[in-house]
Amino acid sequence: MRAALIHGAGDVRVADVSDPALVEPTDAVVRVVVTCVCGSDLHPYHSKPDAEEGDQIGHEFVGIVEELGDQVAGVSVGDMVIAPFAYADDACDYCREGLQTSCPNGGFHSGAQAEKIRVPQASGSLVAVPGDVDQALLPSLLTLTDVYPTGWHAAVQAGVGPGSTVTVIGDGAVGLLAVLSAKQLGATTIILMGRHTARTDLGREFGATHVVASRGEEGIAEVRAITDGEGTHAVLEAVGHMPAYEQALGAVRPGGVISRVGVPQYEEAPVGFGSLFRHNITLTGGPAPVRAYIEQLLPAVLDGTVEPGRVFDRVIGLSEVPEGYRAMDDRESLKVMVDPTR
Amino acid sequence: MRAALIHGAGDVRVADVSDPALVEPTDAVVRVVVTCVCGSDLHPYHSKPDAEEGDQIGHEFVGIVEELGDQVAGVSVGDMVIAPFAYADDACDYCREGLQTSCPNGGFHSGAQAEKIRVPQASGSLVAVPGDVDQALLPSLLTLTDVYPTGWHAAVQAGVGPGSTVTVIGDGAVGLLAVLSAKQLGATTIILMGRHTARTDLGREFGATHVVASRGEEGIAEVRAITDGEGTHAVLEAVGHMPAYEQALGAVRPGGVISRVGVPQYEEAPVGFGSLFRHNITLTGGPAPVRAYIEQLLPAVLDGTVEPGRVFDRVIGLSEVPEGYRAMDDRESLKVMVDPTR
Repeated sequence: MRAALIHGAGDVRVADVSDPALVEPTDAVVRVVVTCVCGSDLHPYHSKPDAEEGDQIGHEFVGIVEELGDQVAGVSVGDMVIAPFAYADDACDYCREGLQTSCPNGGFHSGAQAEKIRVPQASGSLVAVPGDVDQALLPSLLTLTDVYPTGWHAAVQAGVGPGSTVTVIGDGAVGLLAVLSAKQLGATTIILMGRHTARTDLGREFGATHVVASRGEEGIAEVRAITDGEGTHAVLEAVGHMPAYEQALGAVRPGGVISRVGVPQYEEAPVGFGSLFRHNITLTGGPAPVRAYIEQLLPAVLDGTVEPGRVFDRVIGLSEVPEGYRAMDDRESLKVMVDPTR
Repeated sequence: MRAALIHGAGDVRVADVSDPALVEPTDAVVRVVVTCVCGSDLHPYHSKPDAEEGDQIGHEFVGIVEELGDQVAGVSVGDMVIAPFAYADDACDYCREGLQTSCPNGGFHSGAQAEKIRVPQASGSLVAVPGDVDQALLPSLLTLTDVYPTGWHAAVQAGVGPGSTVTVIGDGAVGLLAVLSAKQLGATTIILMGRHTARTDLGREFGATHVVASRGEEGIAEVRAITDGEGTHAVLEAVGHMPAYEQALGAVRPGGVISRVGVPQYEEAPVGFGSLFRHNITLTGGPAPVRAYIEQLLPAVLDGTVEPGRVFDRVIGLSEVPEGYRAMDDRESLKVMVDPTR
């Protein structure tokens, strides 16, 4: 089959690789119907050391079950399935608590930008889409594998609820879907910090009440001006770089929560008396346990109440994946969907 | 009147200073019945630059109201009052939310180690003790000004409830009262990390189910051994130094909460993928809004159900305050109570 492989920074290629096969009795093999490039795929795209042997990449996909191991229950061959970017056994304490990303038998997919993929822990991970699926829903269903529940996780972890004031840092797909999530959870002030007008316009449609294009101290001052000098209860940080963290510190209200879902590209950060401690700021977040949220988020996608799939602004074939990375990295494209049959 | 003043590191003196007087109509003047030395007083005791002019110090006191400004309501001259270490107006959004430590008209007392003290925002801060007060309750009432609600705040912010597993780092007064608080809130496993047997013995009486005397990697390994390798849901960090933070990272369970109430003596700390993010660890805490908790904690103190005052292991007069600092700094004494009449 054909698959995308990353060989180093800026070096993604499409090549023929062996078809995936069942290895464990808990595995499935899924034919990929739609996949996409994630903002977090851009981190290795920036920094991966060069290697002759490429690594398969991609962790978001909706597909059709082709084969199932003997121990897989709950899905059938032929089902259309949504695959959370983290697989998990759905049997341990962490899965039962809704923290599937910490499942000891879990892991992260790699290799979804391909025609097919092997899915470990298929019972605990895959969610079959009920009924006949309208093809027009595929983009929104695809967001349920990662970016939409990730935005939702940011908002839930921050305690966003009716009347909350929220700042969202980042106008990528996760940031925009954090806006949508905050709106669904009842936030009344949603300030989107981002500078790409096409994206922030979509953010307004998703529920942003204010857009702040400035960054750093100037951006913080604008957030404070909107909130009577106080900052917002919740800051949803969907970038992962230090300037975004610093913006979060400046935008959060005393007693508020900074909820991070952008993978931190730093290890140390200010957390002392002058940053988090003095005003009881909480820092939370992490990889979203997507599997915990799908049943909750799916109905509004299926009935068209929300259209998170609007974050996709380009559809390409598998051979164009390298160009998809380039377009997202150059911010020509917000999020690229890949149809492996094209 | 006589008062303790800090002139520099290791240099606390008792001297005659002017009596405090009402300045604002919202002030009270309170005669100090009992005060004490706090673990956080030891931070300036270690690091304050030398100065000819000393600063009055101390922020925990129970006293008798001597004078009241025109705008003070809710307390009367002659009342015995508990004074939260942070004063606040009890009129702003933050006070109404129970975050009095972020009140814009609030601040922190300084000068309680004295015969009298001026109390700003007396209406919003002072809590009159009902009825005739049994003198034997004074130590426990004094803990309600800071260390007991601070331990309680650590546990509440960490979400400790029935069945929680908890690690408490630090066997000082706050750590021991965090143990007591976790027990009151229903925690079933309470691991106290501390190496002073007299203190950890008191911790066991307060509710600790395990004591870990080792520090660093060895201490972390012991906590993990007690918890099937997982760590605890909550880690209450009552020290404030970096090794305690690192211990907290090692002791917390995936999805758990590190709740800090020891004033951080560092600004930067690990918070990235490998420390907090990967397993959705939440970092919370800050100065305890003591005023928010007093009504809740007072009844069990008054009826003797709990005896948080057992953290005091020495009573001294005002002239002995310098010796009290030395004894606490040398860990000869857990917590020193000061009776200004002695």
